[in-house]
Amino acid sequence: MLDNGGMNPEEFRAAGHELIDWIADYRLRVGSLPVRSSVQPSDVRSALPELPPEASEPVRALLDDLDSIVVPGLTHAQHPRNFAWFPSNASLSSVLGDIAASGIGALGITWQSAPALTEVEQVVCDWLRRLTGLSEAWHGTITDGASTACLVALLVARERASDGSQRRGGLQAERAPLVAYCSEQAHSSVTKAALLAGYGADNLRYVPAPAPDRAMEPHELDSLMSADERSGRRPAVVVATAGTTGTAGFDPLRAVNEVARAHGAFVHVDAAMAGSAMLLAEHRHLFDGIEEADSLCWNPHKWMGSVLETSLFYVKDPPELVRVLATDPSYLRSSVDGSVVQFRDWGLPLGRRFRALKLWFQLRLDGPEAIRARLRRDLENAARLAALVKAEADWQVLAPVQLQTVCTRHVPLGLAGDDLDAHTLSWCEAINRSGLAHLTPAILDGHWMVRVSIGAEATEWADVEALWELMKTTAGETATGSTS
Amino acid sequence: MLDNGGMNPEEFRAAGHELIDWIADYRLRVGSLPVRSSVQPSDVRSALPELPPEASEPVRALLDDLDSIVVPGLTHAQHPRNFAWFPSNASLSSVLGDIAASGIGALGITWQSAPALTEVEQVVCDWLRRLTGLSEAWHGTITDGASTACLVALLVARERASDGSQRRGGLQAERAPLVAYCSEQAHSSVTKAALLAGYGADNLRYVPAPAPDRAMEPHELDSLMSADERSGRRPAVVVATAGTTGTAGFDPLRAVNEVARAHGAFVHVDAAMAGSAMLLAEHRHLFDGIEEADSLCWNPHKWMGSVLETSLFYVKDPPELVRVLATDPSYLRSSVDGSVVQFRDWGLPLGRRFRALKLWFQLRLDGPEAIRARLRRDLENAARLAALVKAEADWQVLAPVQLQTVCTRHVPLGLAGDDLDAHTLSWCEAINRSGLAHLTPAILDGHWMVRVSIGAEATEWADVEALWELMKTTAGETATGSTS
Repeated sequence: MLDNGGMNPEEFRAAGHELIDWIADYRLRVGSLPVRSSVQPSDVRSALPELPPEASEPVRALLDDLDSIVVPGLTHAQHPRNFAWFPSNASLSSVLGDIAASGIGALGITWQSAPALTEVEQVVCDWLRRLTGLSEAWHGTITDGASTACLVALLVARERASDGSQRRGGLQAERAPLVAYCSEQAHSSVTKAALLAGYGADNLRYVPAPAPDRAMEPHELDSLMSADERSGRRPAVVVATAGTTGTAGFDPLRAVNEVARAHGAFVHVDAAMAGSAMLLAEHRHLFDGIEEADSLCWNPHKWMGSVLETSLFYVKDPPELVRVLATDPSYLRSSVDGSVVQFRDWGLPLGRRFRALKLWFQLRLDGPEAIRARLRRDLENAARLAALVKAEADWQVLAPVQLQTVCTRHVPLGLAGDDLDAHTLSWCEAINRSGLAHLTPAILDGHWMVRVSIGAEATEWADVEALWELMKTTAGETATGSTS
Repeated sequence: MLDNGGMNPEEFRAAGHELIDWIADYRLRVGSLPVRSSVQPSDVRSALPELPPEASEPVRALLDDLDSIVVPGLTHAQHPRNFAWFPSNASLSSVLGDIAASGIGALGITWQSAPALTEVEQVVCDWLRRLTGLSEAWHGTITDGASTACLVALLVARERASDGSQRRGGLQAERAPLVAYCSEQAHSSVTKAALLAGYGADNLRYVPAPAPDRAMEPHELDSLMSADERSGRRPAVVVATAGTTGTAGFDPLRAVNEVARAHGAFVHVDAAMAGSAMLLAEHRHLFDGIEEADSLCWNPHKWMGSVLETSLFYVKDPPELVRVLATDPSYLRSSVDGSVVQFRDWGLPLGRRFRALKLWFQLRLDGPEAIRARLRRDLENAARLAALVKAEADWQVLAPVQLQTVCTRHVPLGLAGDDLDAHTLSWCEAINRSGLAHLTPAILDGHWMVRVSIGAEATEWADVEALWELMKTTAGETATGSTS
């Protein structure tokens, strides 16, 4: 112990080595654990005391509690048979970068408080801009996630459309309502952002995105915008989705941008999950037109596997962003102001961690070519699974498999409507309860389906193949009443 | 390498041990480095290539670049002679918790995706509620920082005052403007939050907070609220500050709450920096009345030293929070909904890291008693420094030293106005340029002063004493023209 009672560097060194071994061992054995935790609500809470001990405990006590309380209380995102929600947060090289960031303990509140924190962030955002084929028109920063990026985009759009209302009477002084648009397949975070930014539910339009592609219809967008203009409203912003959560569908970015421009609206592209596909030149056609947008977001912490919270937010016009988000209190001024980037003025929080190290380590320790190879592996696995599903008479693939998500239903003869929904949820839950794999259901066209989201870093074809056997067996048994 | 090309657990184990040693060594030598980085804008950027290498690099290359590029590019927050901005982000026991979180790679998007992530967060928020003497009426969550917490509070207050306008036409459909209030000493994040939440600059009132205490005047607040009501506006929210950034001043929370209640306004308490003082029973009188507020925020990642981003946000009425922030897309539903907490509905982002481990490790590995002892050390050091400063005829202490911040000016005979400002900035910059200590200036009553913010984990009395000698010498030389 130092005099100050905190853990000193030598104690940290000893405990850190133990912890690194614990993490490596956890990652080696995670595939042998049940994917989904079987704890019940409050199990974890009630295993812990009401107060911490007054005196210091040894690190061994913490590692024991990780084993006995935390690990059984986790659904294992890094399990090779995790096909739930979306792949994320896996890369051990990125973990190293995050460890470096935590250990250094830099404070990012102004360029001067940690110049390297700001400049390495500029560098890695630019590396990923180049690696994804985006032009030099884009300037990036790292935010915590796509929800925050979308909220910031809608705030900037609000201020553009209202000519800076926040500097006057705020949105509440505006008389011609601002309107936001997104596809009916857009992520729930778009709705949340529009409500929080003050547009109001009455001024949020969901543009039809019909089967099979489930892409936003540009002429429907145009009609809605024209109707709003006729009724004295102002189209302010369109959020286009590249890779929807439900089916990994793509809005036609070029056409959407053209319509939005014609009505003077800001365009934000939400590519949270699918943005990783821009790393593959052969898939960039899906993003055709993205260059015409005003802002875009994609999350390396999803399919690319960087540690949370690593979401890239790019804008074309940083000064516009800064006008909406900047503050300039005396205690944050310095002699270099004006000649450096202040990332606090590019987002909501003031202070930031050294987030860039996660990407810096991952890109250098793994290398872009290895990352691309892994993404291609996942795409191939998804295509192979889709082919197997389509070959079975009582199984359906419900949407084009453009990326790594396969949307499925098992449809036994004669089953439809609510009965089919019950069957779908039943076999999916039976698989999850088994702990052998993890899948999450979602609603498409008013009925439940099951999304197979492939791309955990550890997931190989053998895992996908095993999942498919499990799906067939379990759905078959569920249909004949053998289980659940 | 695994087939997938990412770093495998054994490679991680080897590299992780190297990195742990690097961190321990950095923390051991940080006191020998210049506190403030001397790099110029773009130095770090231009030291890095335009693209990462295609192939994998060894971890040694990264550690070498940390040494040769990153460390010289940092202002060292963990340096024992860092007295700039605020202490933060230091605790190596908290670093261990953060490493565990990164290594586990859990995905917090719903209770079911990582039950322990949610429930340990509930537990540590409750531990810190008890340790700070807050009542059971408070329910906590971890957010990234006080700026976000303040924005959320102002959004909830907006919806309370407008009876849920976001579910209708939004703030833009409101006709009687909502008004927000804070002290003229409040942090810049309050202004930012009010602008982003749509209140507008015209509807934000800065309540006078005169010397010597620089605390919000409750009767002035009352007058402003009454005047707004007479002009057809609606007082919606008061942000009271417990521990201002400039002088660590305290708004009188009991009186402010009484006035706010009388006008039907929501009260949020920003205790970002000073909240750590609630850990000390003998200092809780400064927070008298905090129980009457609707929400409060304090940052363990500041003076308590937890790793960024660890900000506690407590509310009295979680269902009200959830009504403003919740979304319920099909892909996030599960069978336990309704019987568990979904922290995604308590804040802006959807996904979260396993943030609670930072606090869980720190509280157990260091123990509350050691944390309290360290805070008391800092308070004593601040009091001792203030006594030394006051004892010198040409030095001033500009505000009551209630916590660990000492606000000073060196006033050589005959110097005033712009000349005094130039002198203040000059000696402060000379110290910072020397690398021997780091201080940040701020404006008080229209003129520059220097804040000595004591409380880096490594800072002992000898460091404060050395700083004081440096201040006297440097300011004296600056006044007589020997330097700068």
